[in-house]
Amino acid sequence: MAKKKIPIKEKVRKGNEEYAKENCRILAGKDILCINLMSSPGAGKTTLIEVTREFFGDDYRIAVIEGDLAGNIDEKRLMKSGIPVVQINTVSMCHLNAYMVNEVLEDLPLDDADFIFIENIGNLVCPAGVPLGEDVRVVILAITEGDDKPAKYPVIFHDADAVVINKIDFLRFMDVDVASIEEQIKAINPDASIFKVSAINGDGIGEWADWLAMKKKEKA
Amino acid sequence: MAKKKIPIKEKVRKGNEEYAKENCRILAGKDILCINLMSSPGAGKTTLIEVTREFFGDDYRIAVIEGDLAGNIDEKRLMKSGIPVVQINTVSMCHLNAYMVNEVLEDLPLDDADFIFIENIGNLVCPAGVPLGEDVRVVILAITEGDDKPAKYPVIFHDADAVVINKIDFLRFMDVDVASIEEQIKAINPDASIFKVSAINGDGIGEWADWLAMKKKEKA
Repeated sequence: MAKKKIPIKEKVRKGNEEYAKENCRILAGKDILCINLMSSPGAGKTTLIEVTREFFGDDYRIAVIEGDLAGNIDEKRLMKSGIPVVQINTVSMCHLNAYMVNEVLEDLPLDDADFIFIENIGNLVCPAGVPLGEDVRVVILAITEGDDKPAKYPVIFHDADAVVINKIDFLRFMDVDVASIEEQIKAINPDASIFKVSAINGDGIGEWADWLAMKKKEKA
Repeated sequence: MAKKKIPIKEKVRKGNEEYAKENCRILAGKDILCINLMSSPGAGKTTLIEVTREFFGDDYRIAVIEGDLAGNIDEKRLMKSGIPVVQINTVSMCHLNAYMVNEVLEDLPLDDADFIFIENIGNLVCPAGVPLGEDVRVVILAITEGDDKPAKYPVIFHDADAVVINKIDFLRFMDVDVASIEEQIKAINPDASIFKVSAINGDGIGEWADWLAMKKKEKA
């Protein structure tokens, strides 16, 4: 799918909330679950999308809105897997907003998708307060970032529907207190579902994918 | 040192640039090199400060301004090492600004410090355009974040005086193209000094510390 540049400096005529509602309306009649995927840079957002798609196989179809400051490295990666994807480049902006998503949403095959993943800018702070019209908010946290991140960056965890603790395959090589990470998340947000996965070797992906399928059924 | 809460919602009467200049003036007569340390969450800012201090031993004295959204985990870590430190909590703000730094700067022992490290909020986007009055800007990048980050987050690398590629001890366990990371940095910012280090085992810390000492002499 062609790269689309969003004119981010164009005056946004409506507020973010209104665009988020419009995105919700566009998706409401489509039997699609829309996931706002947030994390630090390099926590594994794209790899999680790839492995989730592999796990779903022919059961569910996914499409992706790919946010980056610059370039289309991840768009090219996902296109290789045959995933429909549109790229947004924010240049220097630190999160996606609902206007940007609105500009590209209908470029995706909305009648042939079960899940839309919006891969936000890698940033554990700014995307937190900016709804995009998503159904669920998911934060990915790689254990290679250490075991103190929920306590240090509580805001983004507070409103997450799920937290995916990724790169657990690195537990062989490093001393990280995953139980403490879980405790910190629960202290901030007792309702968040927590998954421990390795997007590289597939550990835990079944539970995560089942949760997505459940959320999709709940919405329908 | 006591934790100091900055009233970030207080109306900032002057612009950031003016506070940055004021911070420069405060530090100018002190024979101190001030380093704005920026990275993604969990790239190793605090550990790099600890290992740099160990390396300097009695040769140089360091002090730290510690930025976090919440808590004082890193302040407590650094205090255990006997490092003078003041903590700033930004609550939900995604970067430090020069006003916040101005509010705490003179709480540090400015007559007994050679280096002040300002540990910015973990964020590879927003701290880029916000000068704090520092002498040098340093970006840390952990190889566990993958090998495509400079290309994806070019803005923060563009104005860096140095980039520290950290966690190179993980090269034993994962396939990361460090040469590509270096090429991406050089393409964005040919003048940046690049250091490959492990803040855990001390590899490469000598070159990094020598660079800091050189920068301090250049300023004097």
